[in-house]
Amino acid sequence: MTSLSFWFDFASTYSYPAALRIDEWAAARRVSVVWRPILLGPIFADQGWRNSPFNIYPAKGKYMWRDLERLCAAENLPFLRPDPFPQHSVLAGRVATALEGEARARFCRAVFAGEFGCGRSIDSPEFIAGVLRDQDLPADSLQRAGSDEVKAALKSSVDEARALGVFGAPSFTTANGELFWGFDRLATALDWARDRA
Amino acid sequence: MTSLSFWFDFASTYSYPAALRIDEWAAARRVSVVWRPILLGPIFADQGWRNSPFNIYPAKGKYMWRDLERLCAAENLPFLRPDPFPQHSVLAGRVATALEGEARARFCRAVFAGEFGCGRSIDSPEFIAGVLRDQDLPADSLQRAGSDEVKAALKSSVDEARALGVFGAPSFTTANGELFWGFDRLATALDWARDRA
Repeated sequence: MTSLSFWFDFASTYSYPAALRIDEWAAARRVSVVWRPILLGPIFADQGWRNSPFNIYPAKGKYMWRDLERLCAAENLPFLRPDPFPQHSVLAGRVATALEGEARARFCRAVFAGEFGCGRSIDSPEFIAGVLRDQDLPADSLQRAGSDEVKAALKSSVDEARALGVFGAPSFTTANGELFWGFDRLATALDWARDRA
Repeated sequence: MTSLSFWFDFASTYSYPAALRIDEWAAARRVSVVWRPILLGPIFADQGWRNSPFNIYPAKGKYMWRDLERLCAAENLPFLRPDPFPQHSVLAGRVATALEGEARARFCRAVFAGEFGCGRSIDSPEFIAGVLRDQDLPADSLQRAGSDEVKAALKSSVDEARALGVFGAPSFTTANGELFWGFDRLATALDWARDRA
């Protein structure tokens, strides 16, 4: 079974529909998904940005919110803009890194659904603990997320993404080195993984 | 018959597949297309850019060229990268502005096909004169393009685009104020124009 790597930051708006749709769309093509949490902060810093480009460039930001709203309506996904934007995603990124396989995917979907479906803030240990509880995931994931090992693993995921050419999220990479960027490339990336990787 | 406005700069890479596909896709939906040449230079300057973002941000630029190559292959469109990039598009933009209706669309398609399909430079009067000749368009369009009236009309198109929220190209706007950005939104924009504008 061929696989597609899914690179995302919990603060990334278009990663929300990708996270909520990728497993279903991948299963239909018999492609497996490797969920790879990263942080866009250091990657944006490479490009000279100290904030989300959607905040730095207001015309682009205004467009993105309307586009995301239309897109969620088309996908039948609830949408509520979190405040502030972007959300601090380090804690959620570390907890996702501490989890593996389907447990990680379940955690990630629930965080994204809370953040962009219900407008919740995702940076508190209380919110994360609630997600772990609701999803029947080990409560000690929150403690493990603070370990040096997990912190280093998340940092090294960022380096790995950067080396693959990732400059934004969501991004998707195939085993044979193709990179796809954006929710609107998800179906194409999955087709590519199925047919040519 | 409902219409969709198509905002483009001849220097814009993703405007190439949009220009070569929009009329066919629009006809299939009984939507008419209004071709609106603009210049991205002043719009990018609003965002602090004095060059194409694909040159300013190399990771994004590298991705774009590969993505465009894949996309043209999928659309059965020839692709050859013009050098230098971006091309100077003021002359072609003025000539397009001097033309109207189907003559304008025919001119634009031929310029884009030469530039990104054959890797030609589009900034010389000789190239433009060749396109006008090949497309059976009035040779004096080149002279008319240099008139104060045409220059002012192109500038005012840029202001109009900016007022509609356009920050990049290709962009598409509907009569009821929806803005769509990027070739990957073209089908959605046409559907919107058909169903909801």
